[in-house]
Amino acid sequence: MFVSDSLNVNEAGHLTFAGLDTVDLANEYKTPLYVFDEDLIRMNCRAFQSAINAYYDGNGAAAYASKAFCCIAAAKIMKDEGMHLDTVSAGEIFTAIKAGFPTEKILFHGNNKSDGEIAFAIDNNVGRIVVDGESELKKVNDYAKFCGKTAKVLIRVTPGIDAHTHSFVRTGQIDSKFGITLENGDALKAVKDAINMENIDLAGLHCHIGSLLFDSEPFEHAADVMISFMREIYDKYGFVIRELDLGGGFGIRYDVKDERIDYSDYMRRVLDAVKQSCDKYGVKRPFILVEPGRSIVGEAGITLYTVGRIKEIPDIRSYVAVDGGMTDNPRYALYESHYEACIANRASQERSYIAAIAGKCCESGDMIQYDAPIQPPKEGDILAVFSTGAYNYSMSSNYNRICKPAVVMISNGKARVAVRRETFDDLIRNDVNGDE
Amino acid sequence: MFVSDSLNVNEAGHLTFAGLDTVDLANEYKTPLYVFDEDLIRMNCRAFQSAINAYYDGNGAAAYASKAFCCIAAAKIMKDEGMHLDTVSAGEIFTAIKAGFPTEKILFHGNNKSDGEIAFAIDNNVGRIVVDGESELKKVNDYAKFCGKTAKVLIRVTPGIDAHTHSFVRTGQIDSKFGITLENGDALKAVKDAINMENIDLAGLHCHIGSLLFDSEPFEHAADVMISFMREIYDKYGFVIRELDLGGGFGIRYDVKDERIDYSDYMRRVLDAVKQSCDKYGVKRPFILVEPGRSIVGEAGITLYTVGRIKEIPDIRSYVAVDGGMTDNPRYALYESHYEACIANRASQERSYIAAIAGKCCESGDMIQYDAPIQPPKEGDILAVFSTGAYNYSMSSNYNRICKPAVVMISNGKARVAVRRETFDDLIRNDVNGDE
Repeated sequence: MFVSDSLNVNEAGHLTFAGLDTVDLANEYKTPLYVFDEDLIRMNCRAFQSAINAYYDGNGAAAYASKAFCCIAAAKIMKDEGMHLDTVSAGEIFTAIKAGFPTEKILFHGNNKSDGEIAFAIDNNVGRIVVDGESELKKVNDYAKFCGKTAKVLIRVTPGIDAHTHSFVRTGQIDSKFGITLENGDALKAVKDAINMENIDLAGLHCHIGSLLFDSEPFEHAADVMISFMREIYDKYGFVIRELDLGGGFGIRYDVKDERIDYSDYMRRVLDAVKQSCDKYGVKRPFILVEPGRSIVGEAGITLYTVGRIKEIPDIRSYVAVDGGMTDNPRYALYESHYEACIANRASQERSYIAAIAGKCCESGDMIQYDAPIQPPKEGDILAVFSTGAYNYSMSSNYNRICKPAVVMISNGKARVAVRRETFDDLIRNDVNGDE
Repeated sequence: MFVSDSLNVNEAGHLTFAGLDTVDLANEYKTPLYVFDEDLIRMNCRAFQSAINAYYDGNGAAAYASKAFCCIAAAKIMKDEGMHLDTVSAGEIFTAIKAGFPTEKILFHGNNKSDGEIAFAIDNNVGRIVVDGESELKKVNDYAKFCGKTAKVLIRVTPGIDAHTHSFVRTGQIDSKFGITLENGDALKAVKDAINMENIDLAGLHCHIGSLLFDSEPFEHAADVMISFMREIYDKYGFVIRELDLGGGFGIRYDVKDERIDYSDYMRRVLDAVKQSCDKYGVKRPFILVEPGRSIVGEAGITLYTVGRIKEIPDIRSYVAVDGGMTDNPRYALYESHYEACIANRASQERSYIAAIAGKCCESGDMIQYDAPIQPPKEGDILAVFSTGAYNYSMSSNYNRICKPAVVMISNGKARVAVRRETFDDLIRNDVNGDE
């Protein structure tokens, strides 16, 4: 009935999430509101980790991709769960540090890290820097040398695999701003250079082939290409690559019709393929890293809104406006992303009404979804949108000077505020007022 | 040579903006950096106002559409210039109040104003509430009554005009979340109800037909439809509509090949059409409001970046990464918007290099522009992107936990910080840290 097992309906006919009545949550914390099921987040972390333990002798780690949902509370959960952390900016590293996350388990990504960010990462002993180009490699070596340190590095390779997803979320193909191209020899040259740099410890290779993948085949293909490359490196330079990071991109359910992925089983297939490729190329099995982000938090988050104006245009469509929109969830505006929704206070009724769920921004493109089946709505209803845990809070803006919603976490049936709602004072905090 | 007269090249071969060397600005204030030409902003305000004075006996006003670029500094300029202010949220009204902007000159828009926002507007004596539906009309009347006030109201009408622009920026057609439909009689009913409400002063009508319009014809058409409706209202109810707000949507130049609009002349044509339609329908000339936003600030803003990684993929494309991206300018990701750019420190050289200008976010769609002609770039160069004054700062996000850039204003050849650069502490300001 619902995209996530965290969702249910109680005796009052209200939608529940992680066991709590969402109407009560909306009343207590106000709307719009991001709500997370912390228990599901933890369960998802364990699915990846247990697969690595069961099918790969524990010789690997799952690194949560922070960009999906980054805040101190999220980093603390990852710390608790013994996850590694994939970060993409000094701001994300800073957040992790504030959460007490051990920096040696942090990976630092980015197609264009600034000098300051590289220094920040090395100063804070970030565990792995995923290097995205020759000039960055040199900068990392130079700064590490300056500090008398050795920087542990993975080299990001663009393996030339097209994962057949939306063009905006494809990253493994050659035409990419990310990584160092494999097929023209650039990646091999970077590896050679890294081997020869005194303050670089070249631990491994990284690739990322796309987003929202439901099939493990692209990962298996990528693993084969990368392990073949590891063999080539050994043959050419006698150098052993110890680690292989296969990136992220595991799909989640946005629609009940989407396949339900068993991440543990998915990982088993990927890890089996890794082992087979290692045997095929005579390569020692590397430490394997994967970087799930959306698959950890996506289905574990929902957004609660209050229904405002309902504008029914006969023979055209019915706009149901909510008190949020593209400011808290820009994914429809950006990618025409699909979402399911329901009226939380009449969740047991049939979803017989087709709503164009509109935001409150002064912008026609400010839509959450066109043609969403929901219960017939009334002004004042609570509308829940599902699977909003990833790339909603993290991509939110203050367009129209709208304050970012609060984030509430539910754990063991108890709710707590993880991120406070923004206030008007936050909006003008950095404004210089000439009268001051 | 450049899209805006604010841009030039000095003897050092550096790009200048509002008379100042952009390389110096980048050095002093760091990048990424939004820079505004305050003098041009003021000149644009005056173009609209002078047209209303010259061609319409001053019987009207231009209201700056805050959502294009909202901060205290912008609101102060509008106050100085005697502009009205079009706001779309309590957050924008709050910002205007903090700038000392007179609330009686504020218009309050929105397809889904919350009860709290309506109360906030009435409590603060906002001059005009642009009502977007029957239920809102009733709420405004009820709250005004509760306060013992009379709320001055415009009714937003959807005139059924398709302005033939990008579907995301069309708002005048019937299929819109905005306004009250004219052709099915809903708008007439709302007018009738407003006339009969004790605490509503129905001053006028509002329509908004689209964005980025280069031709005055859609405005002229809209004016004719609206004035015909004013006549119908008079015939049916003997009621005189005193004000007509024709909205905004005036185009700007994103490309040197785009037509250069003389806003004063553009307004002359619109106002001539208003006068003709008034004569045609025997309607007393209303007080005319227009709501320029992009046309006030768009060309008056540029963004300065530092060039980072350059990834040239033979036979495919050359990615030139900058230290910002979709976080400070999401318009390419949202609408595939066009921008021109140049290397500021070699601005006199030929733009012979075709760059795919990429941001630093971990997202393939994080592009500023594909196929932008620029001078052959080097790491460390300053890259200027033009016409970024509208809908860049206002739509910016903290995706990837990237801090929002500073805003610098140039007036009379002097630069000052208008909005301070965000810091890491801003990113975690609302995070609840369980250890606290």
